Amino acid sequence: MTSVLSHSNALEYGKEVLIYFDNRRKFLVKLEQGKKISSDRGTIPVDSIVNKEIGSQVTTSLNVKAWILQPLLIDYLEKGIKRVTQVIYPKDLGLIILMLGLESGYRVLEAGVGSGNTTMVLAHFVKPQGHVFGYENRKEFIEIAKGNLARMGLDKYVTIKYGDIRKGVDERGLDAAIIDIPDPWEALDSLYLALKPSASIAFFIPSMQQLLKLFEAIDEHKGFIDIRAYEILLREIELSRRAIRPSTYMVGHTGFILFARKIIKSSQ
Amino acid sequence: MTSVLSHSNALEYGKEVLIYFDNRRKFLVKLEQGKKISSDRGTIPVDSIVNKEIGSQVTTSLNVKAWILQPLLIDYLEKGIKRVTQVIYPKDLGLIILMLGLESGYRVLEAGVGSGNTTMVLAHFVKPQGHVFGYENRKEFIEIAKGNLARMGLDKYVTIKYGDIRKGVDERGLDAAIIDIPDPWEALDSLYLALKPSASIAFFIPSMQQLLKLFEAIDEHKGFIDIRAYEILLREIELSRRAIRPSTYMVGHTGFILFARKIIKSSQ
Amino acid sequence: MTSVLSHSNALEYGKEVLIYFDNRRKFLVKLEQGKKISSDRGTIPVDSIVNKEIGSQVTTSLNVKAWILQPLLIDYLEKGIKRVTQVIYPKDLGLIILMLGLESGYRVLEAGVGSGNTTMVLAHFVKPQGHVFGYENRKEFIEIAKGNLARMGLDKYVTIKYGDIRKGVDERGLDAAIIDIPDPWEALDSLYLALKPSASIAFFIPSMQQLLKLFEAIDEHKGFIDIRAYEILLREIELSRRAIRPSTYMVGHTGFILFARKIIKSSQ
Amino acid sequence: MTSVLSHSNALEYGKEVLIYFDNRRKFLVKLEQGKKISSDRGTIPVDSIVNKEIGSQVTTSLNVKAWILQPLLIDYLEKGIKRVTQVIYPKDLGLIILMLGLESGYRVLEAGVGSGNTTMVLAHFVKPQGHVFGYENRKEFIEIAKGNLARMGLDKYVTIKYGDIRKGVDERGLDAAIIDIPDPWEALDSLYLALKPSASIAFFIPSMQQLLKLFEAIDEHKGFIDIRAYEILLREIELSRRAIRPSTYMVGHTGFILFARKIIKSSQ
Repeated sequence: MTSVLSHSNALEYGKEVLIYFDNRRKFLVKLEQGKKISSDRGTIPVDSIVNKEIGSQVTTSLNVKAWILQPLLIDYLEKGIKRVTQVIYPKDLGLIILMLGLESGYRVLEAGVGSGNTTMVLAHFVKPQGHVFGYENRKEFIEIAKGNLARMGLDKYVTIKYGDIRKGVDERGLDAAIIDIPDPWEALDSLYLALKPSASIAFFIPSMQQLLKLFEAIDEHKGFIDIRAYEILLREIELSRRAIRPSTYMVGHTGFILFARKIIKSSQ
Repeated sequence: MTSVLSHSNALEYGKEVLIYFDNRRKFLVKLEQGKKISSDRGTIPVDSIVNKEIGSQVTTSLNVKAWILQPLLIDYLEKGIKRVTQVIYPKDLGLIILMLGLESGYRVLEAGVGSGNTTMVLAHFVKPQGHVFGYENRKEFIEIAKGNLARMGLDKYVTIKYGDIRKGVDERGLDAAIIDIPDPWEALDSLYLALKPSASIAFFIPSMQQLLKLFEAIDEHKGFIDIRAYEILLREIELSRRAIRPSTYMVGHTGFILFARKIIKSSQ
Repeated sequence: MTSVLSHSNALEYGKEVLIYFDNRRKFLVKLEQGKKISSDRGTIPVDSIVNKEIGSQVTTSLNVKAWILQPLLIDYLEKGIKRVTQVIYPKDLGLIILMLGLESGYRVLEAGVGSGNTTMVLAHFVKPQGHVFGYENRKEFIEIAKGNLARMGLDKYVTIKYGDIRKGVDERGLDAAIIDIPDPWEALDSLYLALKPSASIAFFIPSMQQLLKLFEAIDEHKGFIDIRAYEILLREIELSRRAIRPSTYMVGHTGFILFARKIIKSSQ
Repeated sequence: MTSVLSHSNALEYGKEVLIYFDNRRKFLVKLEQGKKISSDRGTIPVDSIVNKEIGSQVTTSLNVKAWILQPLLIDYLEKGIKRVTQVIYPKDLGLIILMLGLESGYRVLEAGVGSGNTTMVLAHFVKPQGHVFGYENRKEFIEIAKGNLARMGLDKYVTIKYGDIRKGVDERGLDAAIIDIPDPWEALDSLYLALKPSASIAFFIPSMQQLLKLFEAIDEHKGFIDIRAYEILLREIELSRRAIRPSTYMVGHTGFILFARKIIKSSQ
């Protein structure tokens, strides 16, 4: 198995783990020989961890309990990624993954890549047989995205290109695309050429003006059908013995997600 | 490639396709020689389809246009499954897939299986190397679920068992679990034994009474941490050149989703 | 006291009451001598009610219990009005009433009146000293609206005019306005003339296209500030001893509500 | 007219006005002779305002434009009140006002009063002929609430009592009640005695545990019917020429609102 996320019970030097104190205190930490894991709850010597099993409890220098967990994809989304751009939230990514029907073997287009947050989700769900082709026209983000992917062992499933999909895409016959750029209506011809017939696209669209403009452009393009748009609202439920209730503050709007499928344009 | 969902451009007899008229008129149809596809928009002879490419446009006997699409997972969730029980909606499944971090190779527990709606999503995301172990204590649903899975070519990734997880689970060292039974607090010991340390569970919980009872039971069990609960609201945005707006009617509540991760219980 | 809604404990002939069986079976009924109140739960002779107090329990011919309640404004909104047009929902009306700060004495503009659903809410909150000036350019609705208002005893607080506010409004110095017409951007000059400086307007706007167009028009008009828009979502919580949970189906979107306040346009 | 909120076009010394710069910069200010209104946008001499009309534009010492508006109820809720406790939000108050059908002349019970935030809304909607009876068992809040009400000229419509409604209420035959205390199930007998038959109550309930406990208590009490619960979600829509979109962050949950109406308990 190739991914960092592969489950192994051994806590070895070099492995990245999630140190869990409570729902607000979680840290992704690489186990480095001789080092200490420090937090406001005290320190934990790495050397005291490596002879334990994943899932074990440890105690800090301040006598606070913590647990050593296998990191999951969601931990990297929440805690592990170096972010330099706005990212698509997990609530939205979940729907996108499901609607596109990503699976091992898919060849997927992504634009723009940004910090690689979405890229690592795509790579996770198309591995081990698939591949992500990511386009990013802001050169400074590309190394950051590559670093984030390498850390998770997902870089082998991804090719990141410095380029602008509005001007064209090198690949052909792709299975799906996820597009998060400010003016996706400029990329419809590129997408039409790059995707195989019946392939799905997910467009991430923050504002109403963009949604209207994109819908009109797709409606006129005639190369896509099954056009639908959604918005996802996620409510966190605070859990305690005294009071279970939805959180007072929540993320209200991240973006609209518009889906469409390519058809073979009728010659008539 | 093993799944029915594998993309192939050839429209051959025996293949299942999605006939798309518009967003309200979509049908999953198996291409059977000599048959006609009938709808209120007219008929389409199957024999006139098989020499076409996926993504092609066809015209019915009533001169209405339709398109032939490759079915996706979401099409089976929306149109293809024989349902005999309440199912978990795509909006909730998307979050679950992402939070559990399902990947090819995962061995996942499911209870209860019902019509196999969730099962086919789990199988889709753990194939080709993973496996789903589904438990169902209502015997009459098992054959229905198996039929739904076989139709999609996903049955080889699933073992459905007639049994009650509250009384125990045969498997050990599982990577994740998704539990949709009325009294999940009765299954905590079974789950603790079946899962590997650090593995995640998603509980699907319709009512507040169940949420309170489950949270209290997990909180007291001491075998699980990172307990959190969410609710997903999906708004469909109606798209037309005249009026883009969220739909007047929506699904408001399906259930709460509570997540937890197994730890190694401290012996103290 | 002048309104039908005035509370009096006497159940007299001619009075309108709410017959309550359960949350799904409520009826507004006028107590007419010698008549019977009929429902699928059996009949209740009106003559057996008039000697009772408001709040009393009665029993139908089928031995089903019901209660006789004083109708409230919400009962007329939910059960009592003859509707021929789309109406603004209570969830939205509540916010509007509060944001406009309606009070006894306010002189309020309304367009369009439709069935008078909103009109009766406005009249309720500006009585006994205020007045509603309602404009409606679809002649056939005016008598229906007047009938609905008269039934509640609110007609004396309302003047309904057959006219188009886009072409002008007769009144000047009004305290507030609520506008529910398809193209409110055409009415900004009329509104500016009719309202007193600092007066508030609530615009009810179903679609994104309308919201964009209205915002742009107000932004350019320069006669209004404190422009803000909201959307209200109402979740009904189903209550039962077995399962308390938000309703499965809900009204997801009725409209956006845009508020603005008139200023004195600077001459510069 | 008695309320501070009464509209008068004259800007006189002693009057409270809303100084509006933009949607984030609004201040309630009393016009005091010789004083300056200071903000990060510069100062405005009060003496330069008093000869102007409400709705006028003024310019600060830093040459920034502002407008002088008549304060509305919502301005006091948003900007004007000294808060020492959690308050019920406008989104929830709007629904409560509408569902209770408050009107001039209503005699309304409130518990607990807290800072008087809800009290001033109740007083606003029952004046000039109605009255609010507010109970508060935390003595330190009573003077704060009275001060907030006096500032708005609403104190004459309110009697605030130091007391605990769980132990009883002095008034009888009240038209409505709004209850915001941690254990409202302890107050059902007091409420039953204080309200007239058919009168409505609104309970504000933050947590699921409280909602379950209150519903069970009301269901067993047998003195109330038409029991229903709601939750209101308010989305603010950010307005700009470039991007109109729901706000990224929103208030997600404040509380559930449970409504019920008193009946005459059957002696059987």
